[in-house]
Amino acid sequence: MINYPNKKRLDNNLSIEEKQIKTKEKKILSAANRGMDFEHAVNSSNSYYDDNNIATITKRPTPIRIVKVDYAHNARIVDAYFEKQSTTDYNGVYKGKYIDFECKETKSTTALTFNNISSHQIKHLQKVINHGGIAFFLIYFVSLNEIYLLDASYVIERYTHKEERKSLALSYIKEKGHLVEQGFIPRLKYLDVVDKVYFNEENK
Amino acid sequence: MINYPNKKRLDNNLSIEEKQIKTKEKKILSAANRGMDFEHAVNSSNSYYDDNNIATITKRPTPIRIVKVDYAHNARIVDAYFEKQSTTDYNGVYKGKYIDFECKETKSTTALTFNNISSHQIKHLQKVINHGGIAFFLIYFVSLNEIYLLDASYVIERYTHKEERKSLALSYIKEKGHLVEQGFIPRLKYLDVVDKVYFNEENK
Repeated sequence: MINYPNKKRLDNNLSIEEKQIKTKEKKILSAANRGMDFEHAVNSSNSYYDDNNIATITKRPTPIRIVKVDYAHNARIVDAYFEKQSTTDYNGVYKGKYIDFECKETKSTTALTFNNISSHQIKHLQKVINHGGIAFFLIYFVSLNEIYLLDASYVIERYTHKEERKSLALSYIKEKGHLVEQGFIPRLKYLDVVDKVYFNEENK
Repeated sequence: MINYPNKKRLDNNLSIEEKQIKTKEKKILSAANRGMDFEHAVNSSNSYYDDNNIATITKRPTPIRIVKVDYAHNARIVDAYFEKQSTTDYNGVYKGKYIDFECKETKSTTALTFNNISSHQIKHLQKVINHGGIAFFLIYFVSLNEIYLLDASYVIERYTHKEERKSLALSYIKEKGHLVEQGFIPRLKYLDVVDKVYFNEENK
């Protein structure tokens, strides 16, 4: 998921999260049929799960490389750069288990390419699996308005297999993954899929 | 744990985690025999646990409030401020379980005051417990060179009890918590205590 802030967001004094929400809401309103704001949808779903004591899953802050800080002015950062997330976007706890996932979106109607997936993320997710955690991708096909939850092991397998082409076909994602139901609250009912896949439970 | 970056470390290209806490670090550097760099000790222990496939526990990046970004120069951040962590410093996965903890240090030889613990952190840790995760504090008594692991429930209880004074006595921490053995690698053997407290296992 892209972590650069939107220019517009920086115009006022809201927190970065508030700005993100504001701008994104604007975007959604101005182009409602072009596709949802995926990150906002995930965040609002997590808020719902958190508020209703279902799960606590948080977004990791964007890591920033600080070059210079002005200590004379209240530790103001005057030179810094965005860094790539070396782990994943989200992690947290659900039913005692550790959950870790990464969100990816694509405009393609046929496949998700691996361009935006870093080897650090793949390594991180493999470790999560090794330690008995739950690791997956949420993959948003913008044009189709479909989101799939795919266990990270399938992505890792393809990613590390040199001879495979560097993408996951939608047909493969459909075969191995699960469609995430969209709604109003929560926006994305992805924990229903987690129940089914990792806890052997039917949808609530 | 304090989140300002260290001036000395800003001079080179270390990661954001390693850049944290200038003022404090300076103090530690200028009086090295007064105690270890607690954050560094925790991070290096986590690296050991990660490298040896024991657990994957990461430090959350310091959240930063971005005021201005120069998009003409490679999305350089030219005005920003450090924000308070609304959750905790560390989380991750160990033996399939979700682990979440906060590090606090004090120069006092008798108690840890609640000054540096935010209500957001208390709420967050309560949620972790509610969802079946493992939640604790690592408390470093600098002058004594002792570190205790204390289940978060004890801190939450005191924190939310209006009539109690806003601190935890060392005697209480010793009674309810567990001393963390220090060594060379890993620097802090805190997962040994986690085994004992949360998995009913003896120290390895």
